Amino acid sequence: MVLKVYGHRISEPSRAVIIFCKIDFEEIQVEVLKGQQFSKEYGAIAPMRQIPAIVDGHLKLIESHAILIYLCCSFPGVASHWYPGDTQKRAKIHSILDWHHSHLRRGAAGLVYTTILAPLNDLRSFLQIVIQAEEILLRSLSELENVWLKLDGSFLGGSSQPSIADLSLSCEVMQLELLGEKDYHRILSPYKKVKKWIEDVRSATTPYFDEIHEYLFEYQKGIREQMATQSGKNKGRAKM
Amino acid sequence: MVLKVYGHRISEPSRAVIIFCKIDFEEIQVEVLKGQQFSKEYGAIAPMRQIPAIVDGHLKLIESHAILIYLCCSFPGVASHWYPGDTQKRAKIHSILDWHHSHLRRGAAGLVYTTILAPLNDLRSFLQIVIQAEEILLRSLSELENVWLKLDGSFLGGSSQPSIADLSLSCEVMQLELLGEKDYHRILSPYKKVKKWIEDVRSATTPYFDEIHEYLFEYQKGIREQMATQSGKNKGRAKM
Repeated sequence: MVLKVYGHRISEPSRAVIIFCKIDFEEIQVEVLKGQQFSKEYGAIAPMRQIPAIVDGHLKLIESHAILIYLCCSFPGVASHWYPGDTQKRAKIHSILDWHHSHLRRGAAGLVYTTILAPLNDLRSFLQIVIQAEEILLRSLSELENVWLKLDGSFLGGSSQPSIADLSLSCEVMQLELLGEKDYHRILSPYKKVKKWIEDVRSATTPYFDEIHEYLFEYQKGIREQMATQSGKNKGRAKM
Repeated sequence: MVLKVYGHRISEPSRAVIIFCKIDFEEIQVEVLKGQQFSKEYGAIAPMRQIPAIVDGHLKLIESHAILIYLCCSFPGVASHWYPGDTQKRAKIHSILDWHHSHLRRGAAGLVYTTILAPLNDLRSFLQIVIQAEEILLRSLSELENVWLKLDGSFLGGSSQPSIADLSLSCEVMQLELLGEKDYHRILSPYKKVKKWIEDVRSATTPYFDEIHEYLFEYQKGIREQMATQSGKNKGRAKM
């Protein structure tokens, strides 16, 4: 039975799982922009309505970190550097993945949602929540640069080869592209090690990293066009 | 060399680790209310300035979930139900622990911080952030009740014995006690299974669960007294 991956390439955790999944699997796009995650069928797979989710035989699993760990442990042929067997090395990877949740992800996903996705979908966004998200993001990028990437080595925690933590966190930073070129560079430019590390993860996962992120860049282009249209309409209204 | 646990019983993740740590360990209280986490010495252990952290020989580790997993894998005599060896069972535990970060913890810790800890420490708190935290908390409690506790069995995901996910998430719900009796009951009362499950985790970890939470109840009492004093002062001012 083939592994089924339910997700959408618009979602950072989905992209991390799909990049990793270059094994024999079936990608099922859940149309989250059209609310398909709320269907009865998807509820039977993921009662929390989250993406990504996987189905492997009887197992139904949500949460991208848990999925990545499961794929490393259950499928033959995954190189051990992605999730080493050594307890202490594994502990460091868990630590980075846990930190991701309440720091880098909260900041990056929070800022993208409040400044781009909510306004585009006519949902309210509050200034204080935007400010809080940007503060968390900048602190997280600084910690990423000065703590997780402090040790010699191209990858997180000083490893010479990437782990699932590198894949997951680099996909998170990549979603800042949705903010647009100007804001992306304003936010990222002080973090030289972070920028080099993204390139190292891209090289280590070529060609999948670029292939899966193509959707992000297409979506970004669509957003810019939509924003330009909305801005034009508002100018038109202002003249009336 | 004895395991060192750096933490403070005021912190939910610290309490979860200390309850679990009824092995031979040294508890080192980091005076987070006095800023001791920012000392040079603590920075050498936990550059992110977080609690809890452990030191086990050369290993320095932050993030309570990563610590709990490490303790299960590294110390002899830990019963296997806390973190089973089976890949699929382990995947479910990872999934619940990951969900904890961006749902239950974000809601519970967010609400306690914005409504209790920030005002008490003269830090600003914004209404929209309070509203967002309470919304996340209520949705999380509903998912805890209807998804993770849906299956028959006393514990998360339908297990007949507790895992580290039960310990971590129950400590999170317990911190809602800081909101005061009235709000605690207003928020928790619709969730019968959650309330029963807290009792089941308490029984399974007796006497440590109550012993470690004693600090929380003492702190809660102190908060009520401090709030009453502040309220008295404000009334005094209002009369002037």
